[in-house]
Order: sequence, then structure tokens, then C-alpha cells
Amino acid sequence: MYNYKITVQYDGARYKGWQKQQNTLWTIQGKLEAVLAELIGNEVEVHGSGRTDAGVHAIGQVANFKCEQMLEPEAVKAYMNHYLPEDIGILLVEEVPLRFHSRLNAIEKQYEYHIWNVAKPDVFRRKYTAYVPEKLDIQKMQEAAELLVGEHDFRSFCSNQKMKKSTVRQLYEIQIQSKQEEIILTFRGNGFLYNMVRIMCGTLIEVGLGKRIPEEMRAILMACDRKMAGRTAQPEGLFLKKVVYPK
Amino acid sequence: MYNYKITVQYDGARYKGWQKQQNTLWTIQGKLEAVLAELIGNEVEVHGSGRTDAGVHAIGQVANFKCEQMLEPEAVKAYMNHYLPEDIGILLVEEVPLRFHSRLNAIEKQYEYHIWNVAKPDVFRRKYTAYVPEKLDIQKMQEAAELLVGEHDFRSFCSNQKMKKSTVRQLYEIQIQSKQEEIILTFRGNGFLYNMVRIMCGTLIEVGLGKRIPEEMRAILMACDRKMAGRTAQPEGLFLKKVVYPK
Repeated sequence: MYNYKITVQYDGARYKGWQKQQNTLWTIQGKLEAVLAELIGNEVEVHGSGRTDAGVHAIGQVANFKCEQMLEPEAVKAYMNHYLPEDIGILLVEEVPLRFHSRLNAIEKQYEYHIWNVAKPDVFRRKYTAYVPEKLDIQKMQEAAELLVGEHDFRSFCSNQKMKKSTVRQLYEIQIQSKQEEIILTFRGNGFLYNMVRIMCGTLIEVGLGKRIPEEMRAILMACDRKMAGRTAQPEGLFLKKVVYPK
Repeated sequence: MYNYKITVQYDGARYKGWQKQQNTLWTIQGKLEAVLAELIGNEVEVHGSGRTDAGVHAIGQVANFKCEQMLEPEAVKAYMNHYLPEDIGILLVEEVPLRFHSRLNAIEKQYEYHIWNVAKPDVFRRKYTAYVPEKLDIQKMQEAAELLVGEHDFRSFCSNQKMKKSTVRQLYEIQIQSKQEEIILTFRGNGFLYNMVRIMCGTLIEVGLGKRIPEEMRAILMACDRKMAGRTAQPEGLFLKKVVYPK
């Protein structure tokens, strides 16, 4: 048995998200498995480092799959890039030890959230940014973001309220950069709950709009109640940037 | 009678180009005319500053239309942006003198051509750049570009070889910038022939690949023969950036 790690980028605009579904062919996992099944000659399961929602993009998602045959990584990459749709691109294929699992072994994830923050929308950014026409107060967003950094129970920032496992996560950093009309929020943490980045973004946007004060973040975290946090920001602005594994 | 000037941006990926066609609804002119006809209550002709090909984008295309009614420019803009597809965006609507014509009065046009020049394609750039995996020699491209600047007969760079009107144009500037993996060529001139920017780009790319030497530009211009120039570069990388009118 062999184990292969793949690093993949995708434009999520056309897809129903990462996870394979019975009723649609338009998932990233589904597309990857279909192409690999053709290559290998039998069904294969592709394990992602985590699911991304419909419309969410990836710059560097990581997945792995096991198979009986020994494959040449460069040949797998070339084959997949030839047969995958043009909005999914394989960046790297590597043979890894059998014990490697893309989700269980990840020690850090990085996400970027792009906001188009100017009074006029831009046709070229419509699928790759969240459009917020009112001027955001970045200073205030920064203050709020700092209160979210650290180890906290992020249950208030999780869409799955029935989550039985721990909702404690460590958020290493939130960086907020303003690049002309675009605001980019970068999140680094040891793991993220379902919709956690989008709910944090929605809440930070409400701070930037003056609808909330930064200090509210403390109370939201304390409450462990999804209703306390802001809206789930739209998926178009979100990019899974990088998944980090131990050296 | 009133005359209105509109500045419009569009992502050309889904469209068969600017010009209205009998057999498809997917043209920019067709979409604009359809929405304006609804607003005004009768058919209206939208005159563009020039046609763009299928797949070509515009950051600041200019057009104008005449109608009997006096319209409120801001209301026209809001109405159009509401009913147009999301890949066409109206940036500005202005009432202008009746004699204004977007094509005939233009004194300068600016185009940008984006090349993704790195060994791996990028799923997010696929519709907005020409993909050239081999490293381009920008210095050589710059030398060749300088020989194209000025007033010349650009017949060799025109796809319409039956063109009866003058093929002399003045090219004010070609700028070549390298931004990480992307090379951006900017063209400023008093007018451009059919496919002229794309043929210049295709020829300059061949220079960058070492398939031609910069000095060949002189002979190509002199020949007044399309076959002497390079390939027509792909449309995805091309953006109509700006149309300039007298103050």
C-alpha cells in the first residue's frame, strides 16, 4: 500500500464545496476521486485536510489518498491536471509514509478573507471578494481581532451547535491588511470549527461598520452561543491558504 | 433628443465579444441595449468606442446612446446595475452634448495585456491572463516594443487584410512591467486596428521566447503583411483599460 499527498488549488465558484455528495458531481472531492479512479483503475477515497463550503476557494488545500500501486508523483500530477476541470489545479504530488493523514496530522491552517471595500463593485472581484460598500474602520476591526487571538472556546463562532467534541481552538494570529480597495484578513490557528472563519469575518465586519464595539468580542466568546456573534460572511471572499504539517 | 455617455467594465469570459449578433444574446452591446430598452420603453442603439473580441475584458469601455427622454444619470446607472448580469458593471453615466460619439471622438485608447509567466498555471488567473510557462526575456521584449512605438503603418498587425481605410496609427507608448509571476504590457495609442494589440502581444511573446530578435520589428512593419507578424495572442489576457476624449 502506498500513500500520496496532494496539494491542490481551486476556484470554488462553480462547486458545491469540498465534500462529495450523492446528488451532485460538482464537489472538489468528487472531481479528484473521479480522475484518480480513472488513473488507478479502481475507486479511491481522497481525504481532505478539512471541508470547504460551496463558493469557498483554496490556494493550498492538502489531501491524501492510498492505493495498491506505486505511482510516479510527477506523472500523477500531470495526469490529474490534464483531466481535471481548469478551475482545479494540482500543485504538488508527493509520496508520504502510510501513517500520514491530511486532516489528523495538520498542526496549523491559514485562511485569507478578501473584502472589496469601496462604493462601487468590481466585476473582476465578484467571485473572489465579499463586497462591503460602506467604509470599514480597520483600526476598530484590529482591536476586536486581537481579543479573538489566543486559546478560547469558539462555540459562539461555530455553525454546528450540536457539536459534541471540544470547541476549544487556538488562534495564533489575525492580520488585517488594507491594499487599496481591498482588505485582506489572514487567520492562522491550530484548527477551525465549522464556519468559524466566516462567522469571525462577519462579526469583524459589523465592528468595522460601527454596529458593534470591539470589546463585545469578550462577551461573545464567553457566551458560547452562536446567536451572540455576527452574520456568517459570504463564502466568495474566503480562501484556504495553507495547511501546515510537522517537519 | 438627449445623449448619454456610459463607462462600463466587463468580465468578457462568458461573452461573444462587444458587438451585437443575430445568433446569440451573449454580447456586451446586446445586454446593454436589452436593459436600456426596458428602461426607456423603446429600442435604443448603444455605440461603443470600439469592439472587443470574445473573451476580452474591459476596465473602462465607453459607449453612448441617444434617446428622446431626459434621464437622471444616477438613476440610469442604478437601474442598469440592478438588471445587468453581475459580470457587467456600469461605472458612470453622464449626459453629454448631442454631438458626442464614443468612437469618433476618442483621442486615445489604453489596453493592458496580462501574461502569467511561471511554470505552473493558476486557477484564479485562467480567465484573466495568457499563460506562458517558459520564462520570457523582458529586456528583449522591451527592445522590440520600442521599435513599434511611434507613427507607423500597422497593416502587418491587423487581422483584416481587406481593410480599405488607412492602417496608419500612432502608438504613444508600450510599457512592460513585471509583477512577480505576472507580466503586464500596457499600450497607449490614438487607435488600434482589428486584433492589433493581440498580434503585437503574440509577436512580443515570440521575442521573449527567443524565437525572434527585436530588430525583426522593423521588417515586419515595413512588409505590411499580416503573415510576417507573430500569432494572435489569446483573448483572455486583454483588457480595454481606458478611452480618452478631449477635455
